[in-house]
Amino acid sequence: MSIDGAYDTENIFAKILREEMPCVKVYEDENTLAFMDVFPQSRGHMLVIHKHEQARNLLDISSCGLKQIMKSVQKLARAANIALSPDGIIITQFNGGPAGQTVYHFHVHIIPKYHGGLKPHAQMGDNGDGMADRDELNMLATQIKSALITD
Amino acid sequence: MSIDGAYDTENIFAKILREEMPCVKVYEDENTLAFMDVFPQSRGHMLVIHKHEQARNLLDISSCGLKQIMKSVQKLARAANIALSPDGIIITQFNGGPAGQTVYHFHVHIIPKYHGGLKPHAQMGDNGDGMADRDELNMLATQIKSALITD
Repeated sequence: MSIDGAYDTENIFAKILREEMPCVKVYEDENTLAFMDVFPQSRGHMLVIHKHEQARNLLDISSCGLKQIMKSVQKLARAANIALSPDGIIITQFNGGPAGQTVYHFHVHIIPKYHGGLKPHAQMGDNGDGMADRDELNMLATQIKSALITD
Repeated sequence: MSIDGAYDTENIFAKILREEMPCVKVYEDENTLAFMDVFPQSRGHMLVIHKHEQARNLLDISSCGLKQIMKSVQKLARAANIALSPDGIIITQFNGGPAGQTVYHFHVHIIPKYHGGLKPHAQMGDNGDGMADRDELNMLATQIKSALITD
């Protein structure tokens, strides 16, 4: 899928927002939702999306929607830093398939980085390996939630 | 350098802001500056920084400063998309040395992606290869500037 195009309401994040698909939620406010990536590149890998804007990528989203998402990204990065004590934190946001985008609803990755490498992005092995254990994601979400600082 | 620590006013971006070091400027407003990365991972690789906030990373920067930077990031991503017609655009932001951060003044990378791979981040070979030709950077900056859309 290219960088341009129409929003597809059947994308997986739209389904999560309509509660047709589950997610391990970490944080939610009026406009944004943060949840654990089910194909984590590291321990504590989260995604932040907008709940109301049908935007495929950074070119489409409103500046107001972008501001709301980045505020949540910052809040969650700070919480992950407290909860998980990573050696660093990587923020990525992909626009277009050739850039690594796999779901066409604007999203920002928060990837705690520990010494050593990362797993590849959104890749699944023959037997579904790469997909995180749901109990482990729930535990990580609980840890991060407990470190969220209220405004 | 770890994710936590004090801001060092001798970092290279602080020197660029004080005009002690040159840069190939693409865009500037009251609060932010965008310039070409001198070790580009792809054609059109830019960096956006805050002009006034002494913040090392996403954990340090104010939410207002973050909003101002991301507004410029979006503006420049849209301009790069028009000017360079990449196949995708990657946004990255690194916090802490183990996450890939090399300059400890908060910055966001805008990396146009073309079919094929990227060069490594901020790496220089034996003879300085990896460092972009200044004329080429000036030409790219001119192309991107011409595609900037005024608010």
